Amino acid sequence: MAKYIYFFGEGKAEGNGKMKELLGGKGAGLAEMTNVGAPVPPGFTITTDVCNYFYKNNGKFPSGLEEEIKDNIQRLERAMGKRFGDSENPLLVSVRSGAKFSMPGMMDTVLNLGLNEKTIKGLIGKTNDERSAWDAYRRLIQMFGNVVMGIEKSKFEKLLDGKKRKKGIKFDHQLSVDDLKDLVVRFKEVYQKETGKNFPSDSLRQLKMAIDSVFKSWNNPRAVTYRRLNKIPEDLGTAVNAQAMVFGNMGNDSGTGVGFTRNPSTGEKKFYGEYLLNAQGEDVVAGVRTPERIENLKKEMPKIYQQLKEITTNLETHYRDTQDFEFTIENGKLFMLQTRTGKRTAFAAVKIAVDMAKEGLISKEEALMRMAPEQIDQLLHPILDPQAKIEVIAKGLPASPGAASGAVTFTAEEAVEKSKREPVVLVRSETCPDDIHGMDAAKGILTARGGMTSHAAVVARGMGKPCVAGCEAIQIFEEDKKIVVNGKSIKEGDWLTIDGGTGRVISGKVPTVKPSLSGDFDTFMKWADKTRKLGVRANADIPRDAKMAINFGAEGIGLCRTEHMFFAPDRLPIVQKMILADTEKERRKALDKLLPLQREDFLGLFREMKGYPVIIRTIDPPLHEFLPRREELMVEIALMKERGKPKAKIKKKETLLARVEQLHEMNPMLGHRGCRLGITYPEITEMQVRAIMEAACTLAKEGKTVLPEIMIPLVGHINEFKNQKAIAVKVAESVMKNYGVKIKYLVGTMIEIPRGAITADEIATEAEFFSFGTNDLTQMGFGFSRDDAGRFITDYLSKGILKSDPFQTIDQDGIGKLIEMGIKQGRKTRKDLEIGICGEHGGDPESVKFCHRVGMDYVSCSPFRVPIARLAAAQAVIEDKNK
Amino acid sequence: MAKYIYFFGEGKAEGNGKMKELLGGKGAGLAEMTNVGAPVPPGFTITTDVCNYFYKNNGKFPSGLEEEIKDNIQRLERAMGKRFGDSENPLLVSVRSGAKFSMPGMMDTVLNLGLNEKTIKGLIGKTNDERSAWDAYRRLIQMFGNVVMGIEKSKFEKLLDGKKRKKGIKFDHQLSVDDLKDLVVRFKEVYQKETGKNFPSDSLRQLKMAIDSVFKSWNNPRAVTYRRLNKIPEDLGTAVNAQAMVFGNMGNDSGTGVGFTRNPSTGEKKFYGEYLLNAQGEDVVAGVRTPERIENLKKEMPKIYQQLKEITTNLETHYRDTQDFEFTIENGKLFMLQTRTGKRTAFAAVKIAVDMAKEGLISKEEALMRMAPEQIDQLLHPILDPQAKIEVIAKGLPASPGAASGAVTFTAEEAVEKSKREPVVLVRSETCPDDIHGMDAAKGILTARGGMTSHAAVVARGMGKPCVAGCEAIQIFEEDKKIVVNGKSIKEGDWLTIDGGTGRVISGKVPTVKPSLSGDFDTFMKWADKTRKLGVRANADIPRDAKMAINFGAEGIGLCRTEHMFFAPDRLPIVQKMILADTEKERRKALDKLLPLQREDFLGLFREMKGYPVIIRTIDPPLHEFLPRREELMVEIALMKERGKPKAKIKKKETLLARVEQLHEMNPMLGHRGCRLGITYPEITEMQVRAIMEAACTLAKEGKTVLPEIMIPLVGHINEFKNQKAIAVKVAESVMKNYGVKIKYLVGTMIEIPRGAITADEIATEAEFFSFGTNDLTQMGFGFSRDDAGRFITDYLSKGILKSDPFQTIDQDGIGKLIEMGIKQGRKTRKDLEIGICGEHGGDPESVKFCHRVGMDYVSCSPFRVPIARLAAAQAVIEDKNK
Repeated sequence: MAKYIYFFGEGKAEGNGKMKELLGGKGAGLAEMTNVGAPVPPGFTITTDVCNYFYKNNGKFPSGLEEEIKDNIQRLERAMGKRFGDSENPLLVSVRSGAKFSMPGMMDTVLNLGLNEKTIKGLIGKTNDERSAWDAYRRLIQMFGNVVMGIEKSKFEKLLDGKKRKKGIKFDHQLSVDDLKDLVVRFKEVYQKETGKNFPSDSLRQLKMAIDSVFKSWNNPRAVTYRRLNKIPEDLGTAVNAQAMVFGNMGNDSGTGVGFTRNPSTGEKKFYGEYLLNAQGEDVVAGVRTPERIENLKKEMPKIYQQLKEITTNLETHYRDTQDFEFTIENGKLFMLQTRTGKRTAFAAVKIAVDMAKEGLISKEEALMRMAPEQIDQLLHPILDPQAKIEVIAKGLPASPGAASGAVTFTAEEAVEKSKREPVVLVRSETCPDDIHGMDAAKGILTARGGMTSHAAVVARGMGKPCVAGCEAIQIFEEDKKIVVNGKSIKEGDWLTIDGGTGRVISGKVPTVKPSLSGDFDTFMKWADKTRKLGVRANADIPRDAKMAINFGAEGIGLCRTEHMFFAPDRLPIVQKMILADTEKERRKALDKLLPLQREDFLGLFREMKGYPVIIRTIDPPLHEFLPRREELMVEIALMKERGKPKAKIKKKETLLARVEQLHEMNPMLGHRGCRLGITYPEITEMQVRAIMEAACTLAKEGKTVLPEIMIPLVGHINEFKNQKAIAVKVAESVMKNYGVKIKYLVGTMIEIPRGAITADEIATEAEFFSFGTNDLTQMGFGFSRDDAGRFITDYLSKGILKSDPFQTIDQDGIGKLIEMGIKQGRKTRKDLEIGICGEHGGDPESVKFCHRVGMDYVSCSPFRVPIARLAAAQAVIEDKNK
Repeated sequence: MAKYIYFFGEGKAEGNGKMKELLGGKGAGLAEMTNVGAPVPPGFTITTDVCNYFYKNNGKFPSGLEEEIKDNIQRLERAMGKRFGDSENPLLVSVRSGAKFSMPGMMDTVLNLGLNEKTIKGLIGKTNDERSAWDAYRRLIQMFGNVVMGIEKSKFEKLLDGKKRKKGIKFDHQLSVDDLKDLVVRFKEVYQKETGKNFPSDSLRQLKMAIDSVFKSWNNPRAVTYRRLNKIPEDLGTAVNAQAMVFGNMGNDSGTGVGFTRNPSTGEKKFYGEYLLNAQGEDVVAGVRTPERIENLKKEMPKIYQQLKEITTNLETHYRDTQDFEFTIENGKLFMLQTRTGKRTAFAAVKIAVDMAKEGLISKEEALMRMAPEQIDQLLHPILDPQAKIEVIAKGLPASPGAASGAVTFTAEEAVEKSKREPVVLVRSETCPDDIHGMDAAKGILTARGGMTSHAAVVARGMGKPCVAGCEAIQIFEEDKKIVVNGKSIKEGDWLTIDGGTGRVISGKVPTVKPSLSGDFDTFMKWADKTRKLGVRANADIPRDAKMAINFGAEGIGLCRTEHMFFAPDRLPIVQKMILADTEKERRKALDKLLPLQREDFLGLFREMKGYPVIIRTIDPPLHEFLPRREELMVEIALMKERGKPKAKIKKKETLLARVEQLHEMNPMLGHRGCRLGITYPEITEMQVRAIMEAACTLAKEGKTVLPEIMIPLVGHINEFKNQKAIAVKVAESVMKNYGVKIKYLVGTMIEIPRGAITADEIATEAEFFSFGTNDLTQMGFGFSRDDAGRFITDYLSKGILKSDPFQTIDQDGIGKLIEMGIKQGRKTRKDLEIGICGEHGGDPESVKFCHRVGMDYVSCSPFRVPIARLAAAQAVIEDKNK
């Protein structure tokens, strides 16, 4: 005869942790814990085979099951020294579902099965806690009614709320015994009314109905939908776990508590926890009584303390990770209710991983897998004080981590001005390049529009500054100097706090905490560096960022955006002159003025990078970004006319507007930018390459190593690249000749246009390196403007159309295919092609792992993300091995 | 011994037309013409082998070549009855290069070789035309000096111009004998000064130097570059043709003329041409004397006329196409100088093709290949009167064919108003959907910005109205009601003419001609229809266009853009209400009002299409296109405030602006549009599907056939499609149930997002048809905004970076690969997937052929392009066969 039920308790279990298929995740876990020697309240698991039998046989159970249940109940009674349905010393039981995978939508839990008018007396006798007993009974009816019989929760809650209102109390625990007794009566009435039957008083009947209900819940519409969406097979089935209830409120030799094997905040290897005597779990949660520190238990119940410490140490050794456990002491007997991997702060995670590896408990590779790479961010940025009470008024996209408080300002100018007196948060619809000085002055940036790779987000991450982007709930009334968020009005100067790690916008000022980096962190990152195969570079435009990148462990610059240098106040007028020039000659005159400035920029960069490769991209953004805004000019001119200003002045503005209009584009992302500019105005490329090569040659003459890589952006066609490469090579050779030195330099391209990826074999005939610009590749491959997509991506995520924001994590099924195609085709033509990524994805762990799998040479990301990328790259190697 | 020279003359040639490899294109052609029996002036061709020998042996010629040249000269002398270098009856010779492919950059032609102080006397004796003889001598020195010796042309021209200036004359033919004699002396001086040698007087030496020079020119830098760019192998080599000169100015039994075997304007099968007695070719060209009609020759030289007619008829039969020929009569003897395929008008092309097929001269398939599909456009649209004198003031993109004149207007409103009194041309920076009524009222549209698929271009083509787009030379000063084009000012109301077939902008009014369609055209198109395999549908939004499409031979609608109906004046306010709605309920109220209107639209469309499939696309453009323009509102509000208008009124405008701002997008092409709208506002999709299905069911109930295909735009991810398909199917089923009918309908998608093409296998699991939206696919695949790309695409074309505008002809190497991928993957999943194209490329012949090759089921294009697509599709089949 088949075995349908697996018992666990009294030091050993019939099953074990590997039998998830048959016993479900929870059942296997309880068996495993029992086998490790933890005093788990005994119980039994009905297998998934029974579930499958049930569905194959029109809701019938296999013969013999009933007998087996009865046998196991008896075993349970023996193990607990209690009896099911007994009025003296009643055994109470919980029933829980448990499939192989945790599955929302199924029946969850029914507690206190076995309670009735008779057995409650026994419980009261044993606990001396009449209130708790009646509360348990009231809960049983409520849970059973809802979960087993499908009565709406609100039917019970209405009565409960009514009772509390009537008594003028706020919390459940303030209800008296009589209140609870009364509720039991009324709950039973609800039960009768809704189901047409009396609430079952027979303990065994209660149990059977609950078991039945678990099996039926496998085919709940919600569960079916969940399985369909998550591709979980129908025939996995669920198991059912019945387990003895234990009570910590059976007098002063009883109690309940929670704990960690190591400190979850600091990672310190020290038993950590709290408990309450004569109490149930919910008493700890409700916060009515203040729990004691676990050290006290050593005094009060030295044996139990010793036992608990030994058991949890064993559990930690067995599971090879910090445990977060729950226990109950019933009449001087310790029961372990649950143990699981303990959550921890990033700081603790590093320490625990390093310690455990040093203790020999885990390998270095395992240690590296113990930390989610994103968590590292917490170590680098200030976070909100976890103790602080906060009022979240809106949520946007977590665009750049860290938390900051400051006075609200609406323009870059104000931000610069005000920041001299107090911290400010810059709030804008969206930012644009001429807001950069304001962003630099602000402690944090909040925008109403734009996605994870909008201008604000990218720049803020580069600056290592908190940013919440695309917070659509915000309406900005710049004129009135206020914003309205969900009806709440916030004026200029009011304080606001943003949490760029979660996207929360919080009213007022919230204290922040800045974790400090420990020596363990260095050890940990060194292990990561030894393991990883991917190189990690940084996106950095100026020497200050380059220095930071080196400190964070970058091994080169993967992207220097030369145009960012054009926005400096001393350069913008020259850049504008260049753009407004009518002839090539005039344009060259302006460029000649820019040349020495850019040369200095690059010199600084090369010096900081000490011979590491430095990829410098030629000008990328459309030229109108450097000019005044079109609509503002239009308003200005209209007002000048209205006010009768001199015609000559108006004319001048109109000429400027005419040029702005000429440069105006409907879709600048798809417009005259990138190499297209360099093709139309070859003299710009010439100047930039000259500046790069002159800086490099200057250092080379000083005897220093320097490795410039000149990168042409936005190449979609081999001929575009050829055109720009010819210019670059010509200038480079002539500069080297002038300086009388010969240095190694590369000319390569961004692969960021879908057509570039598709024709990568052609492009690689000329390009010496590829750098995937996954921001643009995602924009164009998906047809999502990164500045606008925030509007519907949120909707897409909530409707399950997309699983993650493709601007945050590479869309491997679509854009990823383009990347793979590009790499494969590129290397087909040029075997030693250097391939990397410099989009924002270069700092996203999942994307970094993808880059490793598809065979890139390096990733490049903003300096603050360098450590994240280093760890993710190491994990990718380990995951590869374990596959 | 190898044979290095092939002689032709006296009725037969040693070579023939197939020997292009050895004799070059020109040499093979002369041989062929000789063999056909045409009295070609005799001559000989030195083979390409000699050229290759020359380069392999350091510029040495093979031994025996010199002998062979001499032998052939003697043969030539015999054939012409003249002698080389003879002072009585001198033989003159021309030398021309001739590789397998025509190749710019190489030495071209030297005429009159053999002339010197001695032989010129013989020439004068024979021609009695001293002036011409000296002119020929002067030309020889000039051509020889420039072409053979590399003396700059200007050195000679300066002297010639000086002479004319001194004499106060304008044309060369006004120079006297003495002038020419003087020039000969001076040219020789130049020759001596530049080369250090005397001009060679020996005839044979002249000839040898010229031959030598042709071979050397094969390795000219220009020729080398040309071969590299066009991938012509280096070792093809060139041949050299030496041919006897004949003279039409040897008295009244001599003459020269040109002609066609059929009328090139009408196609009529009638000998057609003109001639001059006692004249040389350049006299006809110079237009000093008026040529006679060929019919006169019949009277003046009946035998010659008869011979000419016979020869050219033979040539036509031999070459199987209308011939355009040149002839010279020297002393009563007819020589055929050249024959080639005759250029013809579109009208003539159709007639000639049909006639020749009926005559049995060519097959029907050949007839179909004889017409360039683009030419059909000339038959459907008015063109500029070819006789008219015009002043072209600028050139833009030839965005929509046809020509139109009208008074300049700058706004849609003005266009509507003014068009009541006179024809107008609408001139705008770029058009947008609310200009449509103005475009409808105008005769033609001219824009300063935008490419071949900009809004103006697409809409104009749909309307069959001329449009020149992206004419960057135009500066528009709307305030001053004028435009400035290359310094020329044109005011509102001034007349302007545009030629949408060439992109020319012409000042003033130019008469136009509208060709009428003949019965031959019908015959021709029927042959095309029988041959082609691709279906041809039309893009049509309204019944009027659908009717036109059917008339042009469309077999269905491939794209109905439902939103175009939203711009009608009675609907726009409702659409705006829908957009501005704060709640779904309000939005639904507005949609309810649109429902019956849209239903009527579709009913009309279905009626016209009589059971043919009709693809209707759900709403596509971003919603802000339906709202007032942001910058205009900003100016308006600023002015209202300045003028102290009531606060309430300002507030109202500001609220509108706030909503416009909320909808404003940086890159609307990549923004909240297409299925993204339908996902955010499912009620819009619901309404549109309801309207489609109610219209279809209404017709079905009348017993009519109807085949609606519902198309979801801008799908990049299978989940987007699933979401919208679920809505469509639900509504469709419910409508059919209500109407009590069951009709066949399909739900499919556009493939226009690169990611859609890449994941077509997934999408085809749900989509029942694919329609490639190649406009967007090109936009996103290339990263070129179709509205902005005009700015640099012109530059790209002129710099050779792109060979053609990818918005006009599918970029087969890049975007084409995406399409092939999409088709292959789509059909892998769903074998019977219906696949078509509805981008503007559907009417471009090269692109249509591509669509055939990659296995699409149909193409869809604007009604006026349907005949073009029909022919191109037929040609694709024929080209396939002949491959």
